[in-house]
Amino acid sequence: MQIIRSVEELKSFRAAASGSVGFVPTMGALHAGHASLIKRARNENDIVIVSAFLNPAQFLPGEDLNSYPKNEAGDIKICESLDVNAFFIPTADEIYSTEEPAIIAPKPISEILEGKTRPGHFDGVLKVLNKLFNLTRPSNVYMGKKDTQQLFIVQKMVKSFFMPINIVPCEIVRESDGLALSSRNAYLDEEGKLMALKLSRSLLNASSLIKKGEISINIVREKMLNVLEPLAVDYIAFVDYKFNEISQIKQGDTIILLAAKVGTTRLIDNIWL
Amino acid sequence: MQIIRSVEELKSFRAAASGSVGFVPTMGALHAGHASLIKRARNENDIVIVSAFLNPAQFLPGEDLNSYPKNEAGDIKICESLDVNAFFIPTADEIYSTEEPAIIAPKPISEILEGKTRPGHFDGVLKVLNKLFNLTRPSNVYMGKKDTQQLFIVQKMVKSFFMPINIVPCEIVRESDGLALSSRNAYLDEEGKLMALKLSRSLLNASSLIKKGEISINIVREKMLNVLEPLAVDYIAFVDYKFNEISQIKQGDTIILLAAKVGTTRLIDNIWL
Repeated sequence: MQIIRSVEELKSFRAAASGSVGFVPTMGALHAGHASLIKRARNENDIVIVSAFLNPAQFLPGEDLNSYPKNEAGDIKICESLDVNAFFIPTADEIYSTEEPAIIAPKPISEILEGKTRPGHFDGVLKVLNKLFNLTRPSNVYMGKKDTQQLFIVQKMVKSFFMPINIVPCEIVRESDGLALSSRNAYLDEEGKLMALKLSRSLLNASSLIKKGEISINIVREKMLNVLEPLAVDYIAFVDYKFNEISQIKQGDTIILLAAKVGTTRLIDNIWL
Repeated sequence: MQIIRSVEELKSFRAAASGSVGFVPTMGALHAGHASLIKRARNENDIVIVSAFLNPAQFLPGEDLNSYPKNEAGDIKICESLDVNAFFIPTADEIYSTEEPAIIAPKPISEILEGKTRPGHFDGVLKVLNKLFNLTRPSNVYMGKKDTQQLFIVQKMVKSFFMPINIVPCEIVRESDGLALSSRNAYLDEEGKLMALKLSRSLLNASSLIKKGEISINIVREKMLNVLEPLAVDYIAFVDYKFNEISQIKQGDTIILLAAKVGTTRLIDNIWL
C-alpha cells in the first residue's frame, strides 16, 4: 500500500493506475463502518483509494474540529489489512490555497436538518469532495447511509457537475446493541453510550410500529420522543427516497432521520423503511 | 465533424476519443478571434471539441442575453472548415437542472472590474465551464486574452479544483484598424465602429508612452481618457501578470484593462505590456 501525503504524488499514482477505481473518502479515525465501505470497494474495483482528511471547511466555528478523534497508525493498519492500494493523508495546506472558488450546496436540501443546525457544513463537504473526486477520478465512491443527507447532496453535485462517478450508498454498520458506528462515539463514556442507544432504539421502535401498519408521522414521532427522553432532540424528520418531505409514511419509500445530543456529543442516525 | 446537441452524446463521444483533447468553449456567433483559438487547438491536439452555448447563468438581468448574436449555420461552417471533431450546441435544459450547487468565483479577483459592473457574472462563467470541462475532459483549453480577467479566474478554478487541464491564453485578434474582435461588435453601426476604435487607440497610445519610459499610472490614465472622450468609461485598470493591482507601470509585467460604452454597447479591451 502506498501512503500518499502530497497532491502531486496522488496525481502520479492516479495517472499510473488503470482499470476501475473505488474511492472511500473519510475523515480518518477509521472504524468497522469505514472498513465495510473499504471491503466493498475492494470487491468491486481494480484499484482502491482511501483518503483520511479532517476537512476544516466542513466544521463550523465552535464545533469539534480540534478534538475530533485521530488515529493515523490505526488507520494505516486497517487500510493495509484490507488491501487498499493508496492511502491519501494530506495536510490542509495541500488541499486548500488562497483565492479559491466556493461551492454552495444545492438548496433547499442543504438548508434543512443538518444544514439548519450546521449552516455551511455541506458547502465544506462539497468543496473537499469535488477536489478529491477530481484528484482520484473514481469509477465508484463508497459512502455510508449514516450520513444520508450528505449522500443525497453529493449525488446532486456529481449529477450537476457531470462527473462520471457512481455514488454507492452503503448500509449503516452498528454495534451489536444497535448503536450506529461513528468516530464521535469516542466522545461517550459508559453512561453516554447507554444513553446513545436511545437513538437506534427509537428508530427500531418506529420501524416495528410502521411494519404493523402505522402511517401517521405524528404518532410515530410521539413514540420516538418517548423513547428518546431525556435526550435533547434536534430533529426527527420523515422523507421519501428522493429526500422530499412527506406527510404520511409509506413502506419502501420512507427514511426517518434523527439528530440528538447525548451530553455535549451530537449524534445522528436514520433508518430506511 | 460530429454535431452534438445532448450531454449523453457528448459523453459517448468523449469516452470513445483517445489522445489529447483541445477544447474551445464559446457562446457561438463565431468570428476570426474564435477561429484563431480553434486553429491553435487543431495544431496542438489529437481531438478538437468546440462548444457554442449562450450561457444564461453569466448574464445579469437586463443584459443582452436575448439579443446576443446567433449564427448556428455559420458556426458549423467555420468549425467544419477548421477540421473540428465535435461541435457541441446544447440547449440550456441539457446543461442545467434544478437543485444544483452554485460556484462562487474566487475573491477578491471576481469582485473588481468586470465583477463590479457585472456582479455574479463570473459565478455563471465558472458554473458552466466546470460542467463543460468535466464533460470534455480536455488536455488544453484555449481562451482569448480579450477576456483577461475571466482567464485568470478560470485558471484559479482549475488549480483549486485540481483539474488536470492546461489553460492556454491566446492573443487578441483585431480588425486591421485595431478594433478587438467581439461578437458584440455586431451591435455597432458605422458611427459606433468608429467610436469603438477609441478603445484600442487609447491602449496603443498608452503602450507607446510606456515604451518611451512613462511609468506613472496617473499620467497614462489621463492620456487614455483624452483619447476615449466622449465615451462613457467604466474602468481603466493597471494590474501585473498575476492580476494584482499595481502602483507603477513595469514593462513585461503590466496589463492595462479597459471597459467603455459606445452608445448602449459595452466593450472591453486590454493590452499586455
